[in-house]
Amino acid sequence: MKMTKSMETAFREDGYLMLESLFSEEEVSFILHQLPILMASETPHVVKEKNGQVRSIYGLHEINVIFEELVRVERLINIARSLLNSDVYIHQTKINIKQAFDGEWWEWHQDFPYWHLYDGMPVPRVLSVMIFLDEVTDFNGPLYVIPGTHELGMVDFEKKATVGIDGAPAYTSSLSANLEYTIERKVLSQWFRQRGIFAATGKPGTALVFHGNIFHASNCNLSPLDRRVLIITYNSIENTLTTVEKERPTFLSNRNFTPLLPVPDNFLRIGNTL
Amino acid sequence: MKMTKSMETAFREDGYLMLESLFSEEEVSFILHQLPILMASETPHVVKEKNGQVRSIYGLHEINVIFEELVRVERLINIARSLLNSDVYIHQTKINIKQAFDGEWWEWHQDFPYWHLYDGMPVPRVLSVMIFLDEVTDFNGPLYVIPGTHELGMVDFEKKATVGIDGAPAYTSSLSANLEYTIERKVLSQWFRQRGIFAATGKPGTALVFHGNIFHASNCNLSPLDRRVLIITYNSIENTLTTVEKERPTFLSNRNFTPLLPVPDNFLRIGNTL
Repeated sequence: MKMTKSMETAFREDGYLMLESLFSEEEVSFILHQLPILMASETPHVVKEKNGQVRSIYGLHEINVIFEELVRVERLINIARSLLNSDVYIHQTKINIKQAFDGEWWEWHQDFPYWHLYDGMPVPRVLSVMIFLDEVTDFNGPLYVIPGTHELGMVDFEKKATVGIDGAPAYTSSLSANLEYTIERKVLSQWFRQRGIFAATGKPGTALVFHGNIFHASNCNLSPLDRRVLIITYNSIENTLTTVEKERPTFLSNRNFTPLLPVPDNFLRIGNTL
Repeated sequence: MKMTKSMETAFREDGYLMLESLFSEEEVSFILHQLPILMASETPHVVKEKNGQVRSIYGLHEINVIFEELVRVERLINIARSLLNSDVYIHQTKINIKQAFDGEWWEWHQDFPYWHLYDGMPVPRVLSVMIFLDEVTDFNGPLYVIPGTHELGMVDFEKKATVGIDGAPAYTSSLSANLEYTIERKVLSQWFRQRGIFAATGKPGTALVFHGNIFHASNCNLSPLDRRVLIITYNSIENTLTTVEKERPTFLSNRNFTPLLPVPDNFLRIGNTL
């Protein structure tokens, strides 16, 4: 996996990049095998839907040696370093599970405003890599992005009064489909008309790299097939978090800014030795 | 508009049929011009979303002379007669408005079980014609159908205890996204694996003809474009409603079984004389 000039140009212009078969079937299968243990954990890392099913697992690199290595494999570090033009560290990792039939929709939003306002991240020199663990189709809730919107900065958003529902910590509203900051509709309409929507679909192992400020949303999963994805957010080490009054837990907002050292691409060997 | 043998075969095998440009842009525009007056009506014909926006307008042929004629134009009657093999009458008409950003999703269901259980319709010798009044894309909540499922009869369904919420008449649960009868997930999964999902997208004026028993659903409208459709349900005059204990209002379940007499295709002339 080598980033080419044309891939870098595409990312800078569109704010996203699709990489087919970035991971092999065998690798995806190995990752999926870690899920049952992770999902069974009763810690705040595991976020559930209203119906009790697991929606997300955060901080994977903190709690699992395989993910601690996986996030540092050479092909991922190469992508993150090329596109952010510096060494990188992990801001956040998670697995999102959009359950068959039950997976909910997410409103249009940008990620960076949350990281800026909650975590003190200075600028949007940050990107996420979403690795498909299931086939993503038009029908199981693919990520929708509006190309080019990463260049707009933090746009006007609609702030909802959802902070601290039911006595839960304020940050929990960013973990549910009922988002606190969503994008104003007039802004969305304008950019939709200019650039349309790209739906990120593909085979397991495909990756979508997307900018911290790109407008994105996803629909309900109306299919009988789960849509599970692993998302790793890399931040530039020249963009580390500033002090905030109330820090979120490290599984949402990592403050270990040590540059990641790449490890060989074959993370499967870890499993083999366990 | 003439139904060909291959179109009839397609409908019988798949349970649906797409007809591009069945209505012209001018005709669609004329239909859309009737909407503001219809939507302003404060009768039970007009069903609203939780946020107060209009979701559906029922019984159009009862309350508006243009729709009374439109449902009988030759091209529509030809389609309904050919596919139902008899004269036909109207069971129901409605306009469904899936609002930009706010339009909700609808679970997988069949229509016929409602008409059978609520209205005493004997057999599924009934079809609906959905005429697109806006462009329908992958992003504004197109109808999803699972081809071939119209042949399964009334499948096992999951009955929810939603009857008469908040003291409203029992039938109102069939008018909201919180449907009373939905299809069992194991049945859906099986047929999805065999036949997949067809998403009915197309330009304004396109029509989707679909069988009363086909499995269908639709997702949220995440786009800034409304998705408005006109749906006319034709029943065979050899399949008229039997007596039921509690009849629904005529705008949901018409009991005038007089065979429809076709009128010339040019319903625009009515508008011209108004």
